[in-house]
Amino acid sequence: MVKLGVKKLGLSTGGPLIGILNEEDARKLGIYAADRIRVRQGKKEISVLIDVAENHNIKPGMIGLFDEVIRELNLDGNKVVHASVQNKPESLAFIKEKLDGKELSKDKINCIVSDIVENRLSEVEVGFFVSGCYKYNLNLNEISYLTQAIVNNSQTIKFKGKTVDKHCTGGIPANRTTMVVIPIVAAAGYTIPKTSSRAITSPSGTADVMEVLAPVDLSRERIIQAVKKTNGCMVWGGALDLASADDRIIKIERVLSLDPEGMLLSSIMAKKKAVNANYVLIDIPVGEEAKIKTKKRAVRLKRKFIKLGKKLGMKVKVMISNGEQPVGNGVGPALEARDVMSVLAGDGPNDLKEKSIKIAGSIFSMVGMWNGEKKAREILESGQALEKMQEIIKAQGGKIKEIEAGRFRYSVKSPRSGVVKKISNKNINTVCRILGCPKDKKAGLYLNFKLNNKVKRGQEIFSIYAESKAKLDYGIEFLNKNKIMEIK
Amino acid sequence: MVKLGVKKLGLSTGGPLIGILNEEDARKLGIYAADRIRVRQGKKEISVLIDVAENHNIKPGMIGLFDEVIRELNLDGNKVVHASVQNKPESLAFIKEKLDGKELSKDKINCIVSDIVENRLSEVEVGFFVSGCYKYNLNLNEISYLTQAIVNNSQTIKFKGKTVDKHCTGGIPANRTTMVVIPIVAAAGYTIPKTSSRAITSPSGTADVMEVLAPVDLSRERIIQAVKKTNGCMVWGGALDLASADDRIIKIERVLSLDPEGMLLSSIMAKKKAVNANYVLIDIPVGEEAKIKTKKRAVRLKRKFIKLGKKLGMKVKVMISNGEQPVGNGVGPALEARDVMSVLAGDGPNDLKEKSIKIAGSIFSMVGMWNGEKKAREILESGQALEKMQEIIKAQGGKIKEIEAGRFRYSVKSPRSGVVKKISNKNINTVCRILGCPKDKKAGLYLNFKLNNKVKRGQEIFSIYAESKAKLDYGIEFLNKNKIMEIK
Repeated sequence: MVKLGVKKLGLSTGGPLIGILNEEDARKLGIYAADRIRVRQGKKEISVLIDVAENHNIKPGMIGLFDEVIRELNLDGNKVVHASVQNKPESLAFIKEKLDGKELSKDKINCIVSDIVENRLSEVEVGFFVSGCYKYNLNLNEISYLTQAIVNNSQTIKFKGKTVDKHCTGGIPANRTTMVVIPIVAAAGYTIPKTSSRAITSPSGTADVMEVLAPVDLSRERIIQAVKKTNGCMVWGGALDLASADDRIIKIERVLSLDPEGMLLSSIMAKKKAVNANYVLIDIPVGEEAKIKTKKRAVRLKRKFIKLGKKLGMKVKVMISNGEQPVGNGVGPALEARDVMSVLAGDGPNDLKEKSIKIAGSIFSMVGMWNGEKKAREILESGQALEKMQEIIKAQGGKIKEIEAGRFRYSVKSPRSGVVKKISNKNINTVCRILGCPKDKKAGLYLNFKLNNKVKRGQEIFSIYAESKAKLDYGIEFLNKNKIMEIK
Repeated sequence: MVKLGVKKLGLSTGGPLIGILNEEDARKLGIYAADRIRVRQGKKEISVLIDVAENHNIKPGMIGLFDEVIRELNLDGNKVVHASVQNKPESLAFIKEKLDGKELSKDKINCIVSDIVENRLSEVEVGFFVSGCYKYNLNLNEISYLTQAIVNNSQTIKFKGKTVDKHCTGGIPANRTTMVVIPIVAAAGYTIPKTSSRAITSPSGTADVMEVLAPVDLSRERIIQAVKKTNGCMVWGGALDLASADDRIIKIERVLSLDPEGMLLSSIMAKKKAVNANYVLIDIPVGEEAKIKTKKRAVRLKRKFIKLGKKLGMKVKVMISNGEQPVGNGVGPALEARDVMSVLAGDGPNDLKEKSIKIAGSIFSMVGMWNGEKKAREILESGQALEKMQEIIKAQGGKIKEIEAGRFRYSVKSPRSGVVKKISNKNINTVCRILGCPKDKKAGLYLNFKLNNKVKRGQEIFSIYAESKAKLDYGIEFLNKNKIMEIK
């Protein structure tokens, strides 16, 4: 046990609890970077990951502490802590087992997840867990343990009665069915508390699009309030502490764009389980540029989703859909929100309307309705869904208003007559990012034609929008070198 | 391109170049933790890994920079940098390939290693590389590419004529043959510039033991000087920039005590190649508690060492030795140094003497001598090796002096008459660490008997040494619960 003076680093990165020792002290304690020490102040004692300073800003006898550590130890007034060597957490042995290809028990997986949530593991250590799961796919038992462990170590929300949820594996631009489906389902009286993500590499996530209409970073209490009032909500999952283990795992997966199948399944299902959904519809768009690229993989995933649902006591239905092109015409937060609102108003892109009806209808059948799709169509076409959407927008603190697209617009005309043979999701994504999506809400791209449509020479085939002239120019520059549509 | 104010964090951890952005700015730039940005100041431009701050110490419009970044950019006076989004380094794609089980080309491995040395990869990213190599063992081509890449991205030293080297895979306490072998070989006129490691989990590394006699953290220039004068040296490899990629990889391996075979081989051979050794003798002790636990694994490793040597243009000889117990009687820096010096003086533990002669003799045969072992024995027994050792100690800046053991001593007597059936290397390691090794140079354990020796009841079988009463007591406490020797 040694006494160390505290140097507050004034830094916080939301990661594990970190302390920085002088090289000399580390050597005296027999400690190496990535080892742990126990730090005590009064009756509070916590485990801290050690980094070793190579320069002289942390003097011998001092320990540099990140804000999280200061907070956990209530260190405000105190200038001295007691430190002793701490063994590595047990979960590391289990992570090694996975890296060796062994099957992990429920308790072991729970131990790993709880250490991840409590920030007891370094990023490298979580990385080794991801590697193990990437190489040796988790089996169905392990996936269900992982899902439950994420939920057990998470905030949860529970509503009375039948709670339904939906999810799309994604990867194609637009495809904003969620925002049509939720109002339909909620209007029918079912509880559907939907949490969504923001865009990571795509031009917009559902949370980004909904944010055009209403705030999405609601607290747990405000979500409960909103859902009690309207049956549904569309909020950003990141504002809650739902499935936070999963968020930390995803952060590490992003480093190499790894997405081990077991982790994909548990990630999705944990978010549904955390809102206590009993009925879950999963949409798997299949396409060359979608997340799931082949029918075969989609079918395999479908089976696993259904089996996993059974293990978790949830009814799961999976829809495999066409992921060759965007659903709807607009891409980018405002343009997608406009598509959604016009479908709800009885107009708008037909593919978005029909796919939403199909999804809502499937959900209705799942909860036991006789002719689900017919019911979904009725609710949409009668205007009840629009009314419900307006309620939800208000309940989340938004206002009903006209949706504007970016002030700077550039349109592209067809160089020939023919048929649309290909639409590049990848280039749509890239140009939308260049135009400013998702930060610039009004930026984006609008397709006048979709696959297999006939086009005449000189007709406008699509246009791009930006909030500044400079960004529009960057977008045009990209279009000069890259194709959005192939017409033959 | 955005302008950011610089906040100097006054921190350096010897790791990758890191900058910390405010959450808001990160979102605006579309950047996530572990992404990279290019930071420019004047004509200097570098790539920086981003961490995202969750608190308000890094205000919007600011970037917190670690000392390494400040230094690289010559930022001393300047308060503003220009930042833009930077693609991930190409090496990440190659790391992913390895994680997918693909064979890596020479260029790809070189690209990964160079990015590791240049601190362009985060620890998580290096961790993924280690995972890939752990799971899919590198094949012989890949191992030789990895070795060469480590050497290409390293400082090197070259001497004229035949340069020899030795290495022991280790894992058992003591076994300080190096310090007997080097003077023998150097006395015969061969160049043998030996770099060693410090203890990581063992009570002492060769560098720790040599440090009892002379400084071991010599600069490259002083090593060259010393070797020119005496033909040999025994220095700490860490003070040089030899094979620094390897050091970074080892740091990550330590997290889960991973040691992929391919990386083990390249790690050892790169250090030999970096001093341009043409002849290398590898000693593989085999024992339950040694690093290499079975004869079978040792034989496989032996074959790989020899083949790898051929690919690298080095002559390699491998000796498989008995790793059941310490070589010599003392364990701990001072006690091991005492064993070494008394063997050189014509006395000392016989096993240490004979093993050293065998190793030196093998080296002599390798370089073409007729009766190597006889020659080695002559040099040792004639006192030439002791003389050479004294030269080397002086050349490294040490003084010839009496070696003292710890002031606090406790001895253990045999409870019965019988034969020593087992010696626990693991418990010897642990008690020595408890006693203060390797930091407390004079701490350690001394064995009066070795395997198969006959012991009478009441005879002193071993003793422990410490520099403080408290540590001795901790050691005794451990001995009360754990056995060092089994006598039957």
